[in-house]
Amino acid sequence: MKTASAMDGLDLCARLDELAKLSCQSDGLTRMVMTKEHRRANDLVANWMREAGMSVREDAIGNIIGRYEGSTPGAPALMVGSHLDSVRNAGRYDGPLGVIAAIASVAGLHAAGERLAHALEVIGFCDEEGTRFGATMLGSRAVAGSFDEAALALRDDEGISLAEAMTRFGLDPARLGGAKRQKGELLGYLELHIEQGPVLEALGLPVAAVTAINGATRLAVTITGMAGHAGTVPMAGRRDALAAAAECVLAVEAAARQAGLVATVGRLDVKDAAINVIAGHVQFTIDLRAPRDDLRLALLADIEARMRGLCAARDVGITITRLHELAATPCAPQLIGSIDAACAKLGLEAHHLASGAGHDGMAMAKLCPIGMIFLRCKGGISHHPDESITPEDTALGARLLLEVMRKPGL
Amino acid sequence: MKTASAMDGLDLCARLDELAKLSCQSDGLTRMVMTKEHRRANDLVANWMREAGMSVREDAIGNIIGRYEGSTPGAPALMVGSHLDSVRNAGRYDGPLGVIAAIASVAGLHAAGERLAHALEVIGFCDEEGTRFGATMLGSRAVAGSFDEAALALRDDEGISLAEAMTRFGLDPARLGGAKRQKGELLGYLELHIEQGPVLEALGLPVAAVTAINGATRLAVTITGMAGHAGTVPMAGRRDALAAAAECVLAVEAAARQAGLVATVGRLDVKDAAINVIAGHVQFTIDLRAPRDDLRLALLADIEARMRGLCAARDVGITITRLHELAATPCAPQLIGSIDAACAKLGLEAHHLASGAGHDGMAMAKLCPIGMIFLRCKGGISHHPDESITPEDTALGARLLLEVMRKPGL
Repeated sequence: MKTASAMDGLDLCARLDELAKLSCQSDGLTRMVMTKEHRRANDLVANWMREAGMSVREDAIGNIIGRYEGSTPGAPALMVGSHLDSVRNAGRYDGPLGVIAAIASVAGLHAAGERLAHALEVIGFCDEEGTRFGATMLGSRAVAGSFDEAALALRDDEGISLAEAMTRFGLDPARLGGAKRQKGELLGYLELHIEQGPVLEALGLPVAAVTAINGATRLAVTITGMAGHAGTVPMAGRRDALAAAAECVLAVEAAARQAGLVATVGRLDVKDAAINVIAGHVQFTIDLRAPRDDLRLALLADIEARMRGLCAARDVGITITRLHELAATPCAPQLIGSIDAACAKLGLEAHHLASGAGHDGMAMAKLCPIGMIFLRCKGGISHHPDESITPEDTALGARLLLEVMRKPGL
Repeated sequence: MKTASAMDGLDLCARLDELAKLSCQSDGLTRMVMTKEHRRANDLVANWMREAGMSVREDAIGNIIGRYEGSTPGAPALMVGSHLDSVRNAGRYDGPLGVIAAIASVAGLHAAGERLAHALEVIGFCDEEGTRFGATMLGSRAVAGSFDEAALALRDDEGISLAEAMTRFGLDPARLGGAKRQKGELLGYLELHIEQGPVLEALGLPVAAVTAINGATRLAVTITGMAGHAGTVPMAGRRDALAAAAECVLAVEAAARQAGLVATVGRLDVKDAAINVIAGHVQFTIDLRAPRDDLRLALLADIEARMRGLCAARDVGITITRLHELAATPCAPQLIGSIDAACAKLGLEAHHLASGAGHDGMAMAKLCPIGMIFLRCKGGISHHPDESITPEDTALGARLLLEVMRKPGL
């Protein structure tokens, strides 16, 4: 393979290490949008893009974009990339992996003097995590034309608004619309990302094609029983809100297992809790996700019915409030097929996986077909300094990405 | 019955209402030890005691005591009473009922010129609830000789120590030992108290003889699983500490039901809880009670075994810490028999009940045989302004108390 040198996993990891040094805090990695570390990350990535034969620009929201023309200049582009910002005290692969691997892939084409029928654009999105201003996917929303201008008034922990931060960064909030791309300009959007879950490691596979980015429903549930003295109220006379909530927690788990989906009770609070008081009032949350909206809504209905039945049997009240509802984002079948074909070419098993976490592809899908490749990560750990991938997997992921960039099937 | 006038339920309730006005806070009833409201309550009760033909003294810890001699002056006394302090935002019957009913009973004897073979002492204990200084049963512990002098250094919310508060109240902490009674002086201790639970109301019975004051064990349980992303970790790969805790909550409930005892998970906290994070760490408490220590220890062993089994099956860690252990206090069979006989005389069904809550009898049992009568209260509600009893039940309880005071069988 002509591009072997550019695909060296150790080289890729060295670049990821170099990016990881650009942190807003001295201990651990936290890189937030519109900071001097964002500026330095864009500059560093821009240099690597130029070395890889790309023309580079920063768009109106601060995304860094390198373009590698196809055999016909000005042809529609396959956009490939990920995000350059991080959560607080982050790992170094969530985001940057997809940008660095895409640059290396273009570098390989460039070194071999190879031009494709379509153009390639490598993008480093400025903000997917929402760490600084709370709103997520600022970069990809601006590109897809779904940026909500109300976000400009959001303020960070120091009271600086996004609009002010953009101005300090050298951008003009009034010209933000310039980041938006037209439908005809992009063939599709492709991203390599760490799995952020334990499935590939458990299966012993390095990569998978993502079928969809899961939709999600979040619920707040309140159970109202009757508080009472832990010593004086016999078991038979109790309307214990915590015991009812415990049954609901297990019902959520059982329903998700049965549906082959995921649902989680992450928070549970007993109001006016005391060691010697029967709980009268319990609140908890449910987070449930599915790669298809019909599956998610069926699980939701099952969970609600189970909980209402359990609470009726215990004569306790239940109120269920929907906090959040997000439709699933399917990946384009053509890109899934191209990833499968590329796996076959590289002698890898073609595995499919839904993404439980959110990604820039959710915003980009409003503009063009999207595809994602997941790379195995150690222990499924992400959003944590222990986030880890091997150089071998990294090289393999980049090679696979290049194959799909060559033949996206779009 | 000669003493009918003194047994009028409306008169008793009027006295309880008058006492309820003596509160440390303007809205709601909160009466704490060594306050001016304690002083005023003791003065009011002392006057009622004198009117009932008793000689009155305040002992070295601030208990108010009225003595009605028997046919032979200086004979051993049956002590009858309850406590005059309250919890915060209390009801008006928990405690004062037992003092007011005892005074009315003596008033009846006095009005009829009736002397018993034994003396009677009516006591209003200064502090059973521990509201001000945290330590409970200060009054009865001082009488029984089990007062821990370390309690003198305890401080209230304003930083005033018990010793300082006693001095301001007109007592001498150095002379506290003077409150202690000798074994020969008291035949026994008898108390009328509201049930503070819903059993008598459910049975349609106004009173019951207490068989024992339940012993109690309190546990802190920590479950350690593995935190994870609610979207990316499949159900099968989870070690969800909250789901494990939910199973434990239900196991505690099932074990208590099976044993015919009570056990309660009152507090449950998810560490670092978030709506989209699988719980890695959950702590909860268990409060379990039984009228016999062997029953309590058997339930404890059952609960521990069930929880360890459930956690092992889920591959989560569990640590169980005993916070508190209190032996059961059996009531004297003679006094239970006398209460039964008195019920029969009054045409009441003799019912037996264990006390789930703690009472001064627990301290007094170190000194002499104890007996308790429970009076039905509305909805089992106590430690709350809605605490309620009927005048008819109140009169009946006082009549029953008088019968047992006449013939304690000791």
